This record gives sequence, C-alpha cells and structure tokens, in this order.
Amino acid sequence: MSFSAPVKDMLFAMEHLANIEQVAQIPGFEDAGLETAQAVLEECAKLCEGVIEPLNIPGDTNPSSLKDGVVTTTPGFKDAFAQFAEGGWQGLQHPVDFGGQGLPKTIGAACLEMLNSANLSFALCPLLTDGAIEALLTAGSDELKAVYLEKLISGQWTGTMNLTEPQAGSDLALVRTKADPQPDGSYKIFGTKIFITYGEHDMAENIVHLVLARVAGAPEGVKGISLFVVPKFLVNADGSLGERNDAHCVSIEHKMGIKASPTAVLQFGDHGGAIGYLVGEENRGLEYMFIMMNAARYGVGVQGIAVAERAYQRAVQYARERVQSRPVDGSVPGAASIIHHPDVRRMLMTMRAFTEGCRAMASTAAAAYDAAHHHPDAAVRQANATFYEFMVPLVKGYSTEMSLEVTSLGVQVHGGMGFIEETGAAQYYRDAKILTIYEGTTAIQANDLVGRKTARDGGQSARAIAEQIARTEADLQASATPAALSMARHLQTAREAFLQAVDFVAGKAKASPNAVYAGSVPYLLLTGNLVAGWQMGRALLVAQEQLAAGNDAAFMQAKITTAQFYAEHILTRVPGLAHTVCTGGESACALPLEAF
Amino acid sequence: MSFSAPVKDMLFAMEHLANIEQVAQIPGFEDAGLETAQAVLEECAKLCEGVIEPLNIPGDTNPSSLKDGVVTTTPGFKDAFAQFAEGGWQGLQHPVDFGGQGLPKTIGAACLEMLNSANLSFALCPLLTDGAIEALLTAGSDELKAVYLEKLISGQWTGTMNLTEPQAGSDLALVRTKADPQPDGSYKIFGTKIFITYGEHDMAENIVHLVLARVAGAPEGVKGISLFVVPKFLVNADGSLGERNDAHCVSIEHKMGIKASPTAVLQFGDHGGAIGYLVGEENRGLEYMFIMMNAARYGVGVQGIAVAERAYQRAVQYARERVQSRPVDGSVPGAASIIHHPDVRRMLMTMRAFTEGCRAMASTAAAAYDAAHHHPDAAVRQANATFYEFMVPLVKGYSTEMSLEVTSLGVQVHGGMGFIEETGAAQYYRDAKILTIYEGTTAIQANDLVGRKTARDGGQSARAIAEQIARTEADLQASATPAALSMARHLQTAREAFLQAVDFVAGKAKASPNAVYAGSVPYLLLTGNLVAGWQMGRALLVAQEQLAAGNDAAFMQAKITTAQFYAEHILTRVPGLAHTVCTGGESACALPLEAF
Repeated sequence: MSFSAPVKDMLFAMEHLANIEQVAQIPGFEDAGLETAQAVLEECAKLCEGVIEPLNIPGDTNPSSLKDGVVTTTPGFKDAFAQFAEGGWQGLQHPVDFGGQGLPKTIGAACLEMLNSANLSFALCPLLTDGAIEALLTAGSDELKAVYLEKLISGQWTGTMNLTEPQAGSDLALVRTKADPQPDGSYKIFGTKIFITYGEHDMAENIVHLVLARVAGAPEGVKGISLFVVPKFLVNADGSLGERNDAHCVSIEHKMGIKASPTAVLQFGDHGGAIGYLVGEENRGLEYMFIMMNAARYGVGVQGIAVAERAYQRAVQYARERVQSRPVDGSVPGAASIIHHPDVRRMLMTMRAFTEGCRAMASTAAAAYDAAHHHPDAAVRQANATFYEFMVPLVKGYSTEMSLEVTSLGVQVHGGMGFIEETGAAQYYRDAKILTIYEGTTAIQANDLVGRKTARDGGQSARAIAEQIARTEADLQASATPAALSMARHLQTAREAFLQAVDFVAGKAKASPNAVYAGSVPYLLLTGNLVAGWQMGRALLVAQEQLAAGNDAAFMQAKITTAQFYAEHILTRVPGLAHTVCTGGESACALPLEAF
Repeated sequence: MSFSAPVKDMLFAMEHLANIEQVAQIPGFEDAGLETAQAVLEECAKLCEGVIEPLNIPGDTNPSSLKDGVVTTTPGFKDAFAQFAEGGWQGLQHPVDFGGQGLPKTIGAACLEMLNSANLSFALCPLLTDGAIEALLTAGSDELKAVYLEKLISGQWTGTMNLTEPQAGSDLALVRTKADPQPDGSYKIFGTKIFITYGEHDMAENIVHLVLARVAGAPEGVKGISLFVVPKFLVNADGSLGERNDAHCVSIEHKMGIKASPTAVLQFGDHGGAIGYLVGEENRGLEYMFIMMNAARYGVGVQGIAVAERAYQRAVQYARERVQSRPVDGSVPGAASIIHHPDVRRMLMTMRAFTEGCRAMASTAAAAYDAAHHHPDAAVRQANATFYEFMVPLVKGYSTEMSLEVTSLGVQVHGGMGFIEETGAAQYYRDAKILTIYEGTTAIQANDLVGRKTARDGGQSARAIAEQIARTEADLQASATPAALSMARHLQTAREAFLQAVDFVAGKAKASPNAVYAGSVPYLLLTGNLVAGWQMGRALLVAQEQLAAGNDAAFMQAKITTAQFYAEHILTRVPGLAHTVCTGGESACALPLEAF
C-alpha cells in the first residue's frame, strides 16, 4: 500500500498555525517562506514515497546483520542513503557555512516527519547525525568543526550518540567509560556503550561517535562527565580517512521493532584505547549532550506523529477495501466496506485527530525554535525559547504516547489481518513502542515538564499558555458555529482542569515530591492533550475563515470536523487526568515494596 | 524470571466477591467449596509454573512449523499437553458423565487464568476444545456425544472452531463453505477456512473441527448456516481412528504474537469432500456457534487478565532489581532500584489495579454463570443469566483492552531492555494484541453490549447493575475510612456518568444508530471500568473487615490501597468517556468518505 506524504496538512499547519511568513521575516530565512516550503516538501515527498518507503517492509523482514564486527544494512538502504545525501537532505536545517541549506526547523520538521513515515528505521540515521551536528556546532572547537561538520552535513559521514552503558540508562550519573588525557591533547577512551543507534553500518564512509566519558579525577556524578568525538576511522590532516580507531561493534540487539536500524554494543579501547577528542570543556559533557538530546527529543516526537500518519493511511486504505457486514443505519442494503461502520469511523477519526493535533503542536513548536535561535530581538528570542522549552517534553512525550494508541488502532481496524505480519500494520505497532522509551522515557519527559518547565518558575510558563488558550476560546465563542462552540466548551473545561493541575504541581513539588511526581505522566498527557487540542481549536477557526473565503472547501470542512472530533473524543480525557494528578499521588506510592 | 500463580488473590475473589460457598450450595457442586478450590488451584499452579510456563519463550522463538501438511509444535508442547490431559485439566468444568470433573466455572476460570499466564499460545488449544465440548453438549445428538465427548474431555482429542473465511470475518452472513447431504445422513464439506487456531498440530491423536457451512438451498445470510463436526480422522464404530478425512492444513500464518499457536488455513474437500456430521438441526448453526463463542469470549477475556498478571510480575521483578537514579524524595542517598521512583510505582500500581479489578469482575461473572446454569430455582437462574450475559462483553472487551495498556506499561517499566526480545516483556505486548480481535473484536463486543444487552431491554439490566453499585457506595460511605470515602466518591461520579450514557444508548439506539454505535466502544470501556471498579469497591470493604478481624493484614492492606488507586487513577476516566458517548457520535461519522 503506497504512502502519500501529507503535504497539504503540513503546509496548512505551517502557514496558519506556525506562521511561516513570520519566520521568513527573520534575517537568514528570507527565502524560507511558504513557496519555498511547498517546493521543498514536494521534492522531499518524492524521495520518501518513491525510494525510502519501499524499503520499510524489507527492513523489517531482512534487518541489519552483524558479521565479524561489520554491520550490513538491508539491501537498498545504502543506495537510498546515498540519494538522501546527494539531495542535500541531511543539511536541510544546517548552516550554509558548512554546506547546509540553512532552512528553518519549521520546514525541516515536516521533512523529518515524512522521512519517518516512510521508514522509521532508515530515518534514525539522519536523526542521530543531526544531533551530532548540533553538538559540534554549539560546543566544538573550530578545528573539530573544520574536520567533521562538512562531512556530516553532506551525509558523507554519519553521527551517533553514545550515552547508555549497561548500568547507566536514564541515570547518566552512573557512566563509567574512562578518558585518559594524552600528551598530544587527545584522549584514550575505554568502556562499553550499549543501545547505540547506527553505531555501526555500511551506509557511510565514516561514523562520528559522540561519547560521554569521565576524565580521571573528575567529580562523581553528572558533573564529572565530558563529551568526546571518537571517529570510527581517524582523519588525516588532509581530511582523508586514516587508521581504524579502536571502537568496535561487538553485537547488535534483537529488537521488537525498528529492526533495520542496527542497535550496537560498542567496545571502546579493547586494543589499546580509542582515540577521542574533547568537545568543549572537560566536565561539561552533560550540558552539551543535552543539546543533542533536545534536538533528538523533538525528533523522536516527530517520529511518533510520522508512524501515526503511516498507520492511519494504511488503515484507511484497508477500511475502504474490506467488505464486511451491513451498516447499522441501513444506508447500504448488503455488506459494505467497513469504513461505513461507525466504530471503524471512530477509530480512523481518532487516529487522524491525534495525528493532526500533534503535527500542529510540533509545527508551532518548530517555529518557536526558529525565532528563539534566530530572531534579531532578544526579548522575542527569550519568549520563544521559553515556549519551545515547554513544548519539547510535550512533543516528545505526548506524540509518542499517542502513537502507541494510534498504531494499536491501526492493527485493530484490520481485524485478524492486522495480526498477520505480511499485512504491514503490525510493524508500526512494534516499531512505535521504542518511541516512548529512547531519548528519555515518557517519565523522564514528564519529570522535565514538572520540574524544570512547571515548578521551577512557579507555573508561570504553564499559566501563560493557558492564557493564550483562553484567547482562542474567546475567538471560538465569538464565531458561534456549532463546531466552534463545542471546541470552546471542551477547551475551557480542559484548560480549567489544567490550571488546577498546574497549581498542584507548582505548589507541592517541593513539599510532596512523591505525590507530584507520581502524577507527572498524567500531567504530561493532559498538558499535551490540551496543547494539541488548542492547536486544533486554532485550526478550526482558520478553516472556518478559509471556507468562508471559498478556499479548498473539502479540506477546510474536514479540518473543522476533525477538530470537533478531537474536542469531543480526546480533550474529554483531560479532566479525569487532572483529577488523578491532584488526588492520586498518595495511593500511587502507598503500597509497601514487599507487597508488590 | 519465574511465574507465581496469584492463588491468594484468586481465592480472595472467589471467597468474598464471587461467594463460592453459595455456589457450593447448588446441587452437583456440593464438593466445590473454598477448600476444594484451594486444593485445585494449588495443584494447577504447580503444572502451570513448573511445566507450561517454561515453554513460553521457546514457543515464541521456535514456533509451530508446517511441512507437507503436518504442523509440528514447539519442542515440549506435546509432552506438556499430555501432562495437562493426564491431570484431567481439560475436563475440569465438564460433566462427570463424560469423564469430566464437574467443577463450577468459578473454579475453572481461575485455572484458565493461570494456564494463560503461563503460556497464552499453549492455553489456546484447551480453550478452543472447551468451546467444541460446550457446543456438542448443548446441540449434539446422543450419537455424536458418544463418539466425541469423552475423547475431547480427556484431552485425547482436541477441538477447533471453523468460522472465518477469507471474505467472512466478523460478518458470518458471508460464509460460503458448502455442505452436500449424503445418502447415509452425513454431509460432504467443501470450502476454505482461515484463522483456525490449532487447526492442525501434533499434540493429540485427532482433531475435531466444528465447521460452519451452508447446505444447498439454505436461506441466504446467517439463517442458512449449519454446524458440522468434521474430524481430522474418521472414527470407526469401535471408537478407533479410521481414514484421514479430506480436511487439510495448507498453510499457517506468520503472526506478530502467540506464535507457538498454529493458526491454520484449512482446506475442506479438495480431494472429493470432507465427511461431516450435522450438529443439531440444519440452519441453526449460528445459534450453536454462539454457545462456543460465548464460552470462548469469556475465555479470551480471562486471557487478557492472565497476560496482564504475567506482565505485571515480570515488571515488578525488574523494577526491584534495576538500580537507576536517586529517588525524588531523597529517601535513598544514591541510586536506588527503580521501584522507588514514583512513576514506576504508578505504572506497577496501574498494572496491578487493572488486573485485580478485571479478575474480580471475571470471578463474579463466573459465579453467575454457575448459578444461571445449575441453580434449582428458575428465577435465580434467570436473574443470574441476565447478569452473566451483560458481563460477557465486558469481560471480553474490557479485560482485553486493558491488557494492551498493561503489557505496554510492562515494556515501559523495563526501559530500553523492554524493547529487546530476550528480556521477555515484548512478547506479552505482541501476544496481547490478538485478544482485542479474535472471538469478536472489541467493536463486536461493544455492539453486543449496546444492542442486545442495553438497548433491547431499554437499559433495565444496566440500571439494575447501577443500583447494586449504589448500594456498595452506601456501604463505603458508612465505613467512612479515607480509602472507602475516596472509592465511594469516585464510584458515585462514575455511576452517574454511566447512567447518562445508558439513557443515551437506550434512548437513541433506534433513532440515531450511527451516533449510538459510534460511541459503543467508549460505552463498553466505561461500563467495564465501572463494573471492575465496583468489584474493587466491594473488595475494599471486605479487606477492611478482614483487617479489623486481624486476618492477613499485609494482603488486606494492599487490597485497600490497590482499590483506592483504582478509584483515583482508573475510575476517573469514566466521566470523560460518558461525555464522549453522549456528545461525540455526530463528529465521529461526519467526515465524508472521500475526505479520509
């Protein structure tokens, strides 16, 4: 079943919700308006639909394999990556100075989504490479930048993030990999890293590992961690590849999903020490790692939206084709295609509404990122940075959690056929489950949302968002159509519940940490639900205006219906979650350990 | 990681919620009181824990395979099934007259649960055999009973249900398999059946297929379907096995989960016609099939509880062992086992509360089944039958839907390790997804709940259950402990929301079928949630009494905490669902087909 990138909905979100024309007023982004966006998206769609998506099922059935330390990716991946690199797609958002295209994240995020819809496993390689590029851009010396950035941005080389060790997953304080300073200013790295996505593969000439390690004598805990570049092949002075470095893949994991993406165990220094180069200063590794991590977290959130979109498209196609049973309303005399059945409609609408809501949320967040990083006015940068920071755990946490529900519904729409691997729906269900785990589990995102993003400023950022939502409610009230009134009513109820949760979280985080953190995931889910719903409310208003102006009536009417569905089927979960946040903390932690 | 059957919680539910001592007053069940239950459960636990559970991972990694029409099950399955049969476990609930043990479903359901916790794939064979036995007991001629029942009940032969065809899944009106009457009173069967669980295997001497087919000239649709026994091997007059029948396995499916359970495509009659024997009367096949189906639906609900229990136990064990990060409340100075973290606690409590709530619901339903079938007083039988009928779609629909959430949380507790197949958590996630699909999807259960169980009697049965819940609320109010008051409050809110949904469903099902049926799954989820929560409310009251009497304080205190958690974290979902049922029907069906 073919994939069709949702270019129209992406452009709608960019134009009307993320306000790309405002982004295009930022110096450096003058050429990055709607027209450019459309041209880029259409070009990207061709590559994703025609080249990369057809490799998705082969990647699942014939995944990456390891032999003698060498990983061979699924046939076709190497060629596809070469086309991806040649097209300049790796450099889309990266600086022109290093060979990138310098486009805003507002456009880049849409391309990232379609790439991930096409093939989650394939897309992980560029996603991790983006993170390595960001870290080097921010903290790398000019020398490191000169050696590595152009090659990474061109897609000639790829990047990895080496954080996890067997004893150190979410808790990076436990990292034990060692870095011994050498007389020439380099370091020798010794240790084992696990869960390294594309830690070894055959799609690029070189792999640039960014590795967390401790220099001898460094403080314990996270304040003693430094970041190093450890290339698979050392790089000669002329930029050509030199000796093989002492960083070797010793195994790859046998996973439930994203099977084509090799998840490596890397052994550093078993043959004398892997040569590494310090990024920035010693003991500031965690800070730099968070740069990569924040980019990657947003990216993983987009992966959730992407796999949800793909699951939705497959389910729609099946629901149109599969004939089974007479509709309950008698509208068809005999058996009809199952898309006529109300519950199938409800499932498809749920999938669609979640996906569009999260896409709109991610798109507005991307525009805030662009303004936060590039706007000439410092106050505007600050305001957008605050907003973006608040959004990152929502984009990551909520979009990935909803992708579990959407991919499960995707299987469900297919009935028994959904459980058969050849149908294709099951792969999305298996693939998606990693998204709520890697780059920080949902609980890690929720702790971030509770601690750094809500409690630290006493709930101020959270309440500022609620005020913006209240303004959207007022506009919806004023418009007074049935759909707008339903959305306004549900938004109001949800926003009021959110404010109660914010008061609880901000007020009690210090005094009752267990009670607050036991509600952190429900708090994240309700906040993400509300913010995505708010974007659907904004979308509804825009769609009504466009409809009145006679623009693209079918699309705009569908947007209005989808927004109303979101309000009535998804926003309705918020009050219950808020109630749980405010009252459920004690019972969550009351059971003695031995009683489990 | 070893499995420990939750015998204590099962006995608690039987004794205090299902009132097994009342069941033991029914003629024929005199010996089936609590003491018997305990002895049976402990014996069953030994077999499940020691023999059948150790085959679960091997079944996943080395599943059933097909060669030349013969299916070979995972090594060990055949021996284990022999032990299962020798122990008399297949006959647990079946009549003593045919060699069974004649125990009530109240006990049988608990054994079924632990068998499925141990190994979902293995347990499917007895589950389907139970269905075949029920159908023959109810509708089979004395001759058919004489030939087949003892062998099925002893576990010497196994049974299957042959409903589905490529074009006929949920919609059995589309069944095309033909049955040609023969002069000797038998029929020749021609057709293809798919998704036949244990349709071919090597664990028993013979396989007794129960097959839906149409006799020439029968009416169209479901009123023209008859039920046939089609044995794999014909049976000689002396009961010995005769010729191979013309029913052959032509392929088995490549599935996402329950891989050890062979899912066969069976071809009937490709070599002259498969010999079949009519069960009951012609054209009443669907009615008989519903006997099997209802038994199987309840059984699949229990599978949901079972896999949830197994996922919970594995997650608890990992959470105790895995050390990562300092607790937010500072209660441990360094990194602690993750069970100390509030969100891990919340996840484990969610898994536990769902599982215990659904177990309590299934146990009370089983006791109602026993009374409905065996109580001497017709009025008592009728009242219990009505209650049981209402419960079947809840046990099936809600317990399986919650098992998706629980097995997902099970993976999540394991973090990255959960995504690695060798860890074992992923298998439950993959296995569970079939449960919301087979034996009638959640939507099919929901349609049953809306149509036959709620709208048909104008909401009377539903409101009768609400009245019982109100009485539990009053008892909780009277007890006035903080846990009881929290439960009372949440039950009341949920019950009132339920009653609104019942009014809507019962009132509008005819006039606005689309709007009502678009809310059928939310209606099922809210009703199941409420009924399981009600049982947790009853359990809370019992546990308080037991605690006051000095009985098993740790267990009783844990039950109170778990019940309170259920109220504050799970019952809280009900009002939002009710709101969706009552207001969301229109937006679910409003999108024109071409807009998807």
